[in-house]
Amino acid sequence: MGPKQQISRIMRPDDANIVGNVHGGTILKMIEEAGCIIGTRHCNTQPGDRCAAQLARVERTDFLYPMFIGEVAHVSAEITYTSNHSVEVQVQVMSENILTGSMKMTNRATLWYVPFSLKDVGKVTEVPPIKYANPEQEEEGKKRYEAQKMERLETKERNGEQLMPVSAPEPYTVGFSQSSLIHLVGPSDCTLHGFVRGGVTMKLMDEVAGIVAARHCKTNIVTASVDAINFHRKIMKGCVVTVSGRATFTSNKSMEIEVFVDADPLIEAEKEKYRAVTAFFTYISLDKENKPLPIPALKLEGEEDQKHFEEGKARYLQNKAKRLADKQRQQ
Amino acid sequence: MGPKQQISRIMRPDDANIVGNVHGGTILKMIEEAGCIIGTRHCNTQPGDRCAAQLARVERTDFLYPMFIGEVAHVSAEITYTSNHSVEVQVQVMSENILTGSMKMTNRATLWYVPFSLKDVGKVTEVPPIKYANPEQEEEGKKRYEAQKMERLETKERNGEQLMPVSAPEPYTVGFSQSSLIHLVGPSDCTLHGFVRGGVTMKLMDEVAGIVAARHCKTNIVTASVDAINFHRKIMKGCVVTVSGRATFTSNKSMEIEVFVDADPLIEAEKEKYRAVTAFFTYISLDKENKPLPIPALKLEGEEDQKHFEEGKARYLQNKAKRLADKQRQQ
Amino acid sequence: MGPKQQISRIMRPDDANIVGNVHGGTILKMIEEAGCIIGTRHCNTQPGDRCAAQLARVERTDFLYPMFIGEVAHVSAEITYTSNHSVEVQVQVMSENILTGSMKMTNRATLWYVPFSLKDVGKVTEVPPIKYANPEQEEEGKKRYEAQKMERLETKERNGEQLMPVSAPEPYTVGFSQSSLIHLVGPSDCTLHGFVRGGVTMKLMDEVAGIVAARHCKTNIVTASVDAINFHRKIMKGCVVTVSGRATFTSNKSMEIEVFVDADPLIEAEKEKYRAVTAFFTYISLDKENKPLPIPALKLEGEEDQKHFEEGKARYLQNKAKRLADKQRQQ
Repeated sequence: MGPKQQISRIMRPDDANIVGNVHGGTILKMIEEAGCIIGTRHCNTQPGDRCAAQLARVERTDFLYPMFIGEVAHVSAEITYTSNHSVEVQVQVMSENILTGSMKMTNRATLWYVPFSLKDVGKVTEVPPIKYANPEQEEEGKKRYEAQKMERLETKERNGEQLMPVSAPEPYTVGFSQSSLIHLVGPSDCTLHGFVRGGVTMKLMDEVAGIVAARHCKTNIVTASVDAINFHRKIMKGCVVTVSGRATFTSNKSMEIEVFVDADPLIEAEKEKYRAVTAFFTYISLDKENKPLPIPALKLEGEEDQKHFEEGKARYLQNKAKRLADKQRQQ
Repeated sequence: MGPKQQISRIMRPDDANIVGNVHGGTILKMIEEAGCIIGTRHCNTQPGDRCAAQLARVERTDFLYPMFIGEVAHVSAEITYTSNHSVEVQVQVMSENILTGSMKMTNRATLWYVPFSLKDVGKVTEVPPIKYANPEQEEEGKKRYEAQKMERLETKERNGEQLMPVSAPEPYTVGFSQSSLIHLVGPSDCTLHGFVRGGVTMKLMDEVAGIVAARHCKTNIVTASVDAINFHRKIMKGCVVTVSGRATFTSNKSMEIEVFVDADPLIEAEKEKYRAVTAFFTYISLDKENKPLPIPALKLEGEEDQKHFEEGKARYLQNKAKRLADKQRQQ
Repeated sequence: MGPKQQISRIMRPDDANIVGNVHGGTILKMIEEAGCIIGTRHCNTQPGDRCAAQLARVERTDFLYPMFIGEVAHVSAEITYTSNHSVEVQVQVMSENILTGSMKMTNRATLWYVPFSLKDVGKVTEVPPIKYANPEQEEEGKKRYEAQKMERLETKERNGEQLMPVSAPEPYTVGFSQSSLIHLVGPSDCTLHGFVRGGVTMKLMDEVAGIVAARHCKTNIVTASVDAINFHRKIMKGCVVTVSGRATFTSNKSMEIEVFVDADPLIEAEKEKYRAVTAFFTYISLDKENKPLPIPALKLEGEEDQKHFEEGKARYLQNKAKRLADKQRQQ
């Protein structure tokens, strides 16, 4: 039928969980990559604006068999229907065990793409038609097209309602910029011995602190300093790590963010969640010439905020005095 | 003074924010890698148990100049003090612009490592002494050692207090396994045009769904199916994406998780956070032979939970009927 | 002799196969990074256009020992010859086991770079000369330069022929193990200038060659050597890269795989798909003690297979003779 495309890749430790099962997400990502390649290529086969195929919808898909590290995933994509402004891509995933030669179909998926112009942002371009083997194929494709169009409209309406209760904190408060991220510890985060590398933890801490700072300042922010970090307890492979950050103090040109790292031994039911690391990050805000910008003052709500702010101020003054003393000693 | 080690690397788009400033976290990670190499090597220079140097503490560190994509980071580490059971590593980071040849010191850091035996888990091994240029160097190192030891003890005590209010939901409730992750969209998540690839979003959604399922089941869980996913709105480079998941329904052998993707255009203050994608993931739990295990029933609290459960049940029965029909048609 | 640069890094699970052997491609990528840093730095040491060193050719390289997860790879690069428009970089890779302290030279490589202006796309800039320890060094460098120039011209011509016929696969035939993968070039694969890094291409080539070897042998296979690689044409950001591999020759203990890299400028319809790189990889098969296993003989079907086999055999015998000569010269 339509144009085809295949992509293949060996499954690596980071594609899978501790037991070796490849994450469904890894497969979904490959499916979409194949779809994006074939969709973008097809939509650019005629004169006119160059365009990129943007994913609009994925139909329900079942994972029939688990895939494992070391197997080769073969993802075959084919264009099976085109309307004026959208492309249907059907994808099939096979897992091959290259040592035994066994081959299994692990899943099928159907994706819908819409081509967007690379010149006029937001403009949807025309899709060149494909040839069908017979009129029935085109007819069936059209039915699938109409069905998904309907469903998309329905979900769009339903999604007007905000689904999770979002309390809207006031800008510049601690709650407004407070952030946390979850990270599932993978093999490449760990030492040979199965413990998370200190550097990996610090990178996640800086990431959260950066998000807090950007939310507060809404500018280009960079790390200015990191206070002493103590690694109280080791974090094991397979843990889920929650890294949370909250603003504690702002001076004219800097802001301090406290970062917590909590580890949750996911599978071992008997073990409890514990706090592994905490630290203070200081961020500054830069303009286009990389010069420091003023920082909006933190709005404090309640005693807790006030207490953290005072402690932050004490650290700030202490570090300032220390820097001054270091400078004088060096002269 | 002590043994030395240098590591160097070109800074890539994924190491930096949209404006091109290298993340402090990238630099911290490199610093720790250099420290870990030199610390582990030194602690294994004598007979006895092989061991791995585990990061115990990082002293306060300042980022003196921003670093940019395309520059080469040179990280030089040196062992500057050893006690019986710990190693002090001092690290210096230089950024080199290989086009202009300019070279700047961007930061200094001091790290403390403790060697753990690779044979007896938890056993701390002896550290071989280093040679000092003069007695003053050793004396100063000892002072730094005593000072950090004191501070570590203090923080440990202070950390007894649980700092963030953790409401403890009951196991098997929706609240117990509910999870969310934050992801800062980087260059390699995006198409040429600066939009997040659909595949990247789906991978994050599966990651959160997997964490919810693992928290609920505490076993090896794998994706069984994904319901139709609609991509209502595009997500731009530089956004922070919050992906949240919550259990909605459990049958005997499967559980359904609803996943939401919210995008927050961090820097553009005028633009509001919006819901970009939602979908239902179904997970199953596997034993060591990859056979399905029973799923603990979801404990429902309140009407909302009950409503979601009923809707999930309807989807479950509908899919089951559809699968059955497909099977019969194929026979 | 010339300017030097070293890069070091711990080998992680994602750098290796399931058994723990580091992929040859990981090492090739590090080698190219060191070469690119030193080459770009050197070419910018004089006034005039700022430029980026673009990989043009890698000489044949042997992998003398396998490297493992947890070892530290030390890659040292040195500029050993410069012509008006090209730079020769010699690289040496050592693997260090930081637990036992053992250190092995795992391979040597020679790379040729050509500097391209960052202002005028396509313009090759002048290379500043290096100082030689004695006239003999310069003379030898010139000989290597002339030899590679000749070879590059030859391969360029030979690469006209389009190669891959696809057929039904009997075990141990060429068709049985033939493989190809597709990679959509992302921002983090590219230099500042938007060209794919040579190291990224080599890593993909090694990945495909590894799949071919595993399919043929069904054992733990590792890269033993890579023949000279010529980078005929640059690959731009936004291309789709197809990397294909097929077995060409087997001896008792090794097999040769030919790898092709084709670039497809997805969006620019007027531009045609073109062959960017080709090379021969040699793989060996290892048992659990990392000792070489016999390789199943390749079943040849038809004249084409026979011709490739004979050519592969010639290369094999030539390399064997060369290794022998090198050994005798060293004694």
